Amino acid sequence: MAESKIPYKINLSENEIPKAWHNVRADMKTAHRPMLHPGTLQPVTPDDLRPVFCDRLVAQELNDKDRFIEIPGPVLDFYRMYRPSPLVRAYFLEKALDTPARIYYKYEGGNTSGSHKLNSAIAQAYYAKEQGLKGVTTETGAGQWGTALSMACGYFGLDCRVYMVKVSSEQKPYRKAVMETYGATVTPSPSGTTQIGRKMLADDPDTTGSLGCAISEAVEAAVSTEGYRYVLGSVLNQVLLHQSIVGLEAKAALEKYGESPDILIGCAGGGSNLGGLMAPFMGDRLAGRKAPRFIAVEPASCPSMTRGRFAYDFCDTGKVTPLAKMYTLGSAFIPASNHAGGLRYHGMSPILSQLYHDGYLDEARAVGQLGVFEAAKLFAKVEGLLPAPESAHAIRVAIDEALKCRESGEAKTILFGLTGTGYFDMAAYMQHNDGTMEDYVPTDADLARGFAGLPEVAAE
Amino acid sequence: MAESKIPYKINLSENEIPKAWHNVRADMKTAHRPMLHPGTLQPVTPDDLRPVFCDRLVAQELNDKDRFIEIPGPVLDFYRMYRPSPLVRAYFLEKALDTPARIYYKYEGGNTSGSHKLNSAIAQAYYAKEQGLKGVTTETGAGQWGTALSMACGYFGLDCRVYMVKVSSEQKPYRKAVMETYGATVTPSPSGTTQIGRKMLADDPDTTGSLGCAISEAVEAAVSTEGYRYVLGSVLNQVLLHQSIVGLEAKAALEKYGESPDILIGCAGGGSNLGGLMAPFMGDRLAGRKAPRFIAVEPASCPSMTRGRFAYDFCDTGKVTPLAKMYTLGSAFIPASNHAGGLRYHGMSPILSQLYHDGYLDEARAVGQLGVFEAAKLFAKVEGLLPAPESAHAIRVAIDEALKCRESGEAKTILFGLTGTGYFDMAAYMQHNDGTMEDYVPTDADLARGFAGLPEVAAE
Repeated sequence: MAESKIPYKINLSENEIPKAWHNVRADMKTAHRPMLHPGTLQPVTPDDLRPVFCDRLVAQELNDKDRFIEIPGPVLDFYRMYRPSPLVRAYFLEKALDTPARIYYKYEGGNTSGSHKLNSAIAQAYYAKEQGLKGVTTETGAGQWGTALSMACGYFGLDCRVYMVKVSSEQKPYRKAVMETYGATVTPSPSGTTQIGRKMLADDPDTTGSLGCAISEAVEAAVSTEGYRYVLGSVLNQVLLHQSIVGLEAKAALEKYGESPDILIGCAGGGSNLGGLMAPFMGDRLAGRKAPRFIAVEPASCPSMTRGRFAYDFCDTGKVTPLAKMYTLGSAFIPASNHAGGLRYHGMSPILSQLYHDGYLDEARAVGQLGVFEAAKLFAKVEGLLPAPESAHAIRVAIDEALKCRESGEAKTILFGLTGTGYFDMAAYMQHNDGTMEDYVPTDADLARGFAGLPEVAAE
Repeated sequence: MAESKIPYKINLSENEIPKAWHNVRADMKTAHRPMLHPGTLQPVTPDDLRPVFCDRLVAQELNDKDRFIEIPGPVLDFYRMYRPSPLVRAYFLEKALDTPARIYYKYEGGNTSGSHKLNSAIAQAYYAKEQGLKGVTTETGAGQWGTALSMACGYFGLDCRVYMVKVSSEQKPYRKAVMETYGATVTPSPSGTTQIGRKMLADDPDTTGSLGCAISEAVEAAVSTEGYRYVLGSVLNQVLLHQSIVGLEAKAALEKYGESPDILIGCAGGGSNLGGLMAPFMGDRLAGRKAPRFIAVEPASCPSMTRGRFAYDFCDTGKVTPLAKMYTLGSAFIPASNHAGGLRYHGMSPILSQLYHDGYLDEARAVGQLGVFEAAKLFAKVEGLLPAPESAHAIRVAIDEALKCRESGEAKTILFGLTGTGYFDMAAYMQHNDGTMEDYVPTDADLARGFAGLPEVAAE
């Protein structure tokens, strides 16, 4: 190992941080269907979106023309704190698996927010600041996005109001504490601070909350408070755009050593990680150049791509957001409470959904959480990084593909995204350590209940 | 900032990882006084130490001749997982303080154990494995050392038994979970598994434990179990030796840009961090070359250097370990329970103690924890890294020195060690956030009680 030409960590230099994001929508053969206004069911206009999102982010959300969008200087400055992130050659994992495959992972957990979410949080906070806003609202489930946004707002001196899924805020007091340390206000959702929250509580006083409900509260809080806008950590086009920095850096680092991946793997909840990691590689595919096989990994307990419908649906439980055409389990679907970590969202990024529908995103694969945690623990032991449960979904499939290479003798090059650390997910590891963790797969009847709540326009 | 010649992060390449540790004992003008056998009060011999420590570590502990000691290949391989660690130019902090000072920090928190402790853990685990041992025992307080050792033992397939100070194991269940995830057995101390633990429990059934007591239990468990040895995460010469990799890398990175520090700052509990960071710089000082001013920072609540005695004392509460000549508050001293994080040890590394006594370690400074957490939160906001409370002691003094530069207009170069992340210390941050944290300074009477327990040989 000491003599390898390719180092364990491929570090780009600071002046190799990309200066522009890659907008994969400009590459797509088929544009994804437009979002629809929840009242009129007509395609949303910029005017519809401006009360909810910052002006510059509205423009990014709707931009399907410009392949590259310049990263503002203050965002680039902030990126220098923790970027370029390392691209790691997983020599130790390869050895443990005795595989001829060459495995690389892009590690995004090295910043204090502990995940890739910071890449979009700082951009969204910057545009809010630039517009002269007082603050932003958002929701968080497992807590990665809320933490990232708190850091970003703390940096720019913006007020930050986070609606945190109630069960998460109770199970993860330390996540909440990190956000508060960065100056954010954290409200367990559903709460009495919004109309929609009060309605949810009236309907079910014992509810543990859901991401869809927290989104509804955060949107209501934003549009009803002077000087505030709403920001979101995944699903949206703008978020995938900002996350493209992950893929751009990974591609540049691999090219330094003449490497190009045969397989690209990303976990997918709302799609921001996979969408970002794959952006420039998908650009190659769509332009007819050599490109890897793309695999999206989702939890078997929340299988929006593998078992969901490609349909118009609401992005939230309260049905206050625009409708998006996406793979969805229905906005009423709530994954089993024993499911650990994030990746609990009922839908999937419209960009990824369209690419999957059109066959450019080659495969979606659902994996059970017991297998995911086995992979996580092996990885932690041999690679020295304790992964977030979300990231471990990608590790599971990377290991499975590397084991196939051991069988076939093929030396494929595998790239996956290691999106975050598991420091705040130790309760889930404890469950796995003491044997109380269980797999859960929704029945067809469970899914039918979610689909029953799809709006009439779903089939359009 | 974008145009600065010195990057935000100075990354050495993998082939610049030092191949040998720096043994500062070979540089010292006055050797520190030898450890004494607890029974005979005579200087310990290698034969006295071999039942407790691995053979190769006994040799390192007693080696005051060889300036450089080669790092074994398997340890170097493991170092490649997470080293070289970044040396960061704190541009954002400099700007926030409006200081002409140039501030650098060596960041050791980027590995999963979250601290510098891994540098010695992997070396000690390797030597145990090389000797054919089954496992090792140790103690941990705040949990950094136990986590690091668990990772190291998991890597080499060694059994790892950790005695964790009872109050910590209750307050930090997730720290415990990380160790268990890496395969370690964690026993709250005092426990019923050792004679000394049973005696402590009989004397005080409600005791919350202490580091000194956990050391006694771990040593007893090692010497009474076939195929086991004891390992320690600080204080000892061998640990400072292994940690010298921190200083060697920092010096090499600074020299790339023609920089040399005017001030070097490290937090000091048992001394492993400061001892490691300063090693090559202290080598310069002792050889009459240009060297920085050295500052050790300790908590006002556990002020071994600023208010302790330079005396022979036991390293543990149970008085089973050899006696060391060091700055000490007495092995019976227990810091206030409201003190957050590590740095709770009653004594100080004999190497650092001797250098301080002889005037080569220029200054020890005690700081209160309210000021420490204020510094930590400012740093987290502007530099994007949430520091461990231990590390924040060094940040406090680095900020104070940088503010002095603002007053005087001097552009001093300041280097400090950022030893770890605060991910597992959020309970302490919560105390600071909600205003319930308090400063505590022991009274002279408190200290007198600790000194009263010093052995008769103390004055030698």
